[in-house]
Amino acid sequence: MPHATRRAALRASLRAQELDALLVTDLLNVRYLTGFTGSNAALLVHAESDGSTAFCTDGRYLTQAAAQVPDLARVVDRPCDAVLLERARGLRRVGFESHHVTVDGLDALRAAAGDVALVRAPGLVEALRLVKDDAEVEALRMACAAADRALAGLVEHGGLRPGRTEREIARELESRMLDHGAAGPSFESIVAAGANSAVPHHRPTDAQVRHGDLVKIDFGALVDGYHSDMTRTLVVGRAADWQRDLHQLVAASQAAGRAALAVGAEVSAVDAAARAVIDAAGHGEHFLHGLGHGVGLQIHEAPALSKAGDGTLLPGMAVTVEPGVYLAGKGGVRIEDTLVVREGAPELLTLTTKELVVV
Amino acid sequence: MPHATRRAALRASLRAQELDALLVTDLLNVRYLTGFTGSNAALLVHAESDGSTAFCTDGRYLTQAAAQVPDLARVVDRPCDAVLLERARGLRRVGFESHHVTVDGLDALRAAAGDVALVRAPGLVEALRLVKDDAEVEALRMACAAADRALAGLVEHGGLRPGRTEREIARELESRMLDHGAAGPSFESIVAAGANSAVPHHRPTDAQVRHGDLVKIDFGALVDGYHSDMTRTLVVGRAADWQRDLHQLVAASQAAGRAALAVGAEVSAVDAAARAVIDAAGHGEHFLHGLGHGVGLQIHEAPALSKAGDGTLLPGMAVTVEPGVYLAGKGGVRIEDTLVVREGAPELLTLTTKELVVV
Repeated sequence: MPHATRRAALRASLRAQELDALLVTDLLNVRYLTGFTGSNAALLVHAESDGSTAFCTDGRYLTQAAAQVPDLARVVDRPCDAVLLERARGLRRVGFESHHVTVDGLDALRAAAGDVALVRAPGLVEALRLVKDDAEVEALRMACAAADRALAGLVEHGGLRPGRTEREIARELESRMLDHGAAGPSFESIVAAGANSAVPHHRPTDAQVRHGDLVKIDFGALVDGYHSDMTRTLVVGRAADWQRDLHQLVAASQAAGRAALAVGAEVSAVDAAARAVIDAAGHGEHFLHGLGHGVGLQIHEAPALSKAGDGTLLPGMAVTVEPGVYLAGKGGVRIEDTLVVREGAPELLTLTTKELVVV
Repeated sequence: MPHATRRAALRASLRAQELDALLVTDLLNVRYLTGFTGSNAALLVHAESDGSTAFCTDGRYLTQAAAQVPDLARVVDRPCDAVLLERARGLRRVGFESHHVTVDGLDALRAAAGDVALVRAPGLVEALRLVKDDAEVEALRMACAAADRALAGLVEHGGLRPGRTEREIARELESRMLDHGAAGPSFESIVAAGANSAVPHHRPTDAQVRHGDLVKIDFGALVDGYHSDMTRTLVVGRAADWQRDLHQLVAASQAAGRAALAVGAEVSAVDAAARAVIDAAGHGEHFLHGLGHGVGLQIHEAPALSKAGDGTLLPGMAVTVEPGVYLAGKGGVRIEDTLVVREGAPELLTLTTKELVVV
């Protein structure tokens, strides 16, 4: 049971903070700790015992909660956070997620808590979520595989032929991900043809792909709540020399980033390793964003691989490495993988080739 | 310019609260007031003048912000909320969205604000959003039309034939909404066949539709950020008498709810009008949820049409009316429209027939 193991790790962290319990109100954190996927829930994790830990949801989710959270005491009532705190009145110090609870929300919690001291306890579950366990990596692997297969199917079946619109391509890609087991796209797919490829976060339009275009495709699949993220930039028809050179440069930068992705490395050093390759080619000002980000239950989560990023890499962190060079009005290339940090080389989850594909 | 008009209404509300400005950090509220659709932004609305009002986003959205927010001073920096507060240091009292800003987030705002008094100001923009203006109703109308057309196409083309799975039907419906101009579904579509129709929030499975099944379909389209919401319950093959009776009962309840949807009505009285019909038929315990909810930039927003709901209806409120009767293990019927409260009869936005359709 990965959820029980995760709760055990959280209990250790609560004892280290001298908290008797933690009120978990962020729904993704509730999901991480219990497996519950509904839209309303809270969890009171007791520092001492899983047997005292209580889960709360409302009547709509009675059946679902029994199926997904069979191993915890369940309360069905509203509002979940206050109901759980009222049951915690014998305790001394109860933490709350101060990075998630709103200023007004805290008033309601205080009223429910009575004499219990409510203590700010931000990011305790997120700290655990930084390092993915086997079940999480497996979900990410399936999400990455669904994206790999969708892109392969799109290319094989002529999905990138001249005359198709960015929007049509995005829709086919998303449909193919569903065919391969995704619950949906993990974010709004980016399909950017020709000069649009120079816009880092371009939204698909009715612009048609033309012979000779770069087509930048940044997309991912959602499987069991986990988000994959991959970018490939292809050429339609015949690649011009400048397109080949740009692609080669970004691929070299991306390889340097992956090579720096080692246990113990500073996240800013990983960014720097990839950025140095682009800087040396004189394109530093055309690489406008950070190198990558964590992925998991959110499409963007810690750690940030960027200049300003803080901290070092741990085994089991799942991150993207995605340098790009964007030449306004002309075109851009981004190449992105999702990987898991491991002792030795990182584990690559997105398996589509990074050679320049000309379709 | 609806956005300028909305900001003018907000300025009046700020002056009534003796606030010099409001820091808007909820992204939907920023969108409502400016039209900006990116994933990072904040807005400082000055009580006295739109010319002093400042919009902030980050570098990724430079081009998009110039296109979507041409009429306001724009700042491109991070973090947006703190940057805008630093620029507000000459002011005396600045409101913040205390129902949205987190406990930890407020610390950062206080540091940025210096000597400016930060004042809790929850729900000011939401109060405006309660009543939809013409541009909002038009977006809702288009969203409802996309859903109507998708369901009509599904039925016409045999999409509900025996042997198809709930999941296949949901996917076809969502694909047809895209064909009719939706950016996507407005929430995870519910397609529930046979006994599954008795589960109010059933998620589509691989269960197949069989001859004689009730099929409950609750779905909506997203257009320009606005959410439509409609439920119809059909029968496949031939309707049994109990299915016809159940459908007729729910349709009568829904008609009573719509008839009660008048300017000045208490929201709880609208719920009661529909509930009385079901209670009188002895099925009160099988109608487990509230009658309806507001729709707009969110799929669920104020007002709640429920027993515990508070307040009265105003012209221009957009709400759902969706009674249901659920007989566990047997089947359920829900019928739902999206409507706009008007002087006289409400305006019906979902135009699909509410007769029992047998396919």
